[in-house]
Amino acid sequence: MNSVSLLDFEKAGGLITAIAQDVDSGEILMVAHMNEDSFRRTLELGEVVYWSRSRQKLWHKGEESGNVQKVKSMHIDCDGDVVLIGVEQVGGAACHTGRRSCFFRKLEGEGVVDVGVQVFDPAEVYGR
Amino acid sequence: MNSVSLLDFEKAGGLITAIAQDVDSGEILMVAHMNEDSFRRTLELGEVVYWSRSRQKLWHKGEESGNVQKVKSMHIDCDGDVVLIGVEQVGGAACHTGRRSCFFRKLEGEGVVDVGVQVFDPAEVYGR
Repeated sequence: MNSVSLLDFEKAGGLITAIAQDVDSGEILMVAHMNEDSFRRTLELGEVVYWSRSRQKLWHKGEESGNVQKVKSMHIDCDGDVVLIGVEQVGGAACHTGRRSCFFRKLEGEGVVDVGVQVFDPAEVYGR
Repeated sequence: MNSVSLLDFEKAGGLITAIAQDVDSGEILMVAHMNEDSFRRTLELGEVVYWSRSRQKLWHKGEESGNVQKVKSMHIDCDGDVVLIGVEQVGGAACHTGRRSCFFRKLEGEGVVDVGVQVFDPAEVYGR
């Protein structure tokens, strides 16, 4: 069965949710979205290509920073609206803040603490 | 800082994405959604309460099957529209198909293979 046919792009206006998980550690790195074109490009390229909702364009992750995500595995969930991508994160950081994972804010009691691992300085990488 | 204030419920019509991850193995079990009420209920109860988009009501996961998800940790992503919940999955299965994880369809070549671990028979648990 073709993988694209298992995906339900219609449910959420042409988009599915994509989760990038470090294929070795199991750590969740980031969550973004894909349209059908970005899903196909990801398969072709072997690197993750999201759909940027804010910029309304294909987003080849790492095209600017060099921190691409190499696809090592892909799983589709039971109702076809989420893909889980096992990746090798080049450069070690997925988050635009320079942290390894976007999930750096951990709930503790009533508040949150920053448990993020800083890998790079975003001002240097993105020049802003 | 209060955790609810870090969440952006407005971006997607009142909902954020919630990922349940086995706190021990790191396996992703399922992805669903939360509104602000379900997020608060989850914190109060210590068990995951989603918002069911199809039924348009609070969904205390496991209320029918007994397979509740005990909250062990919570992380919020950098832009506040996803929560990652480390859970203990009672009964060992998160998926309505009776499999441990909803991500049981693995892409292999042009197609997919079922790599799911069957934990229970849904016909017995849900009576359908």
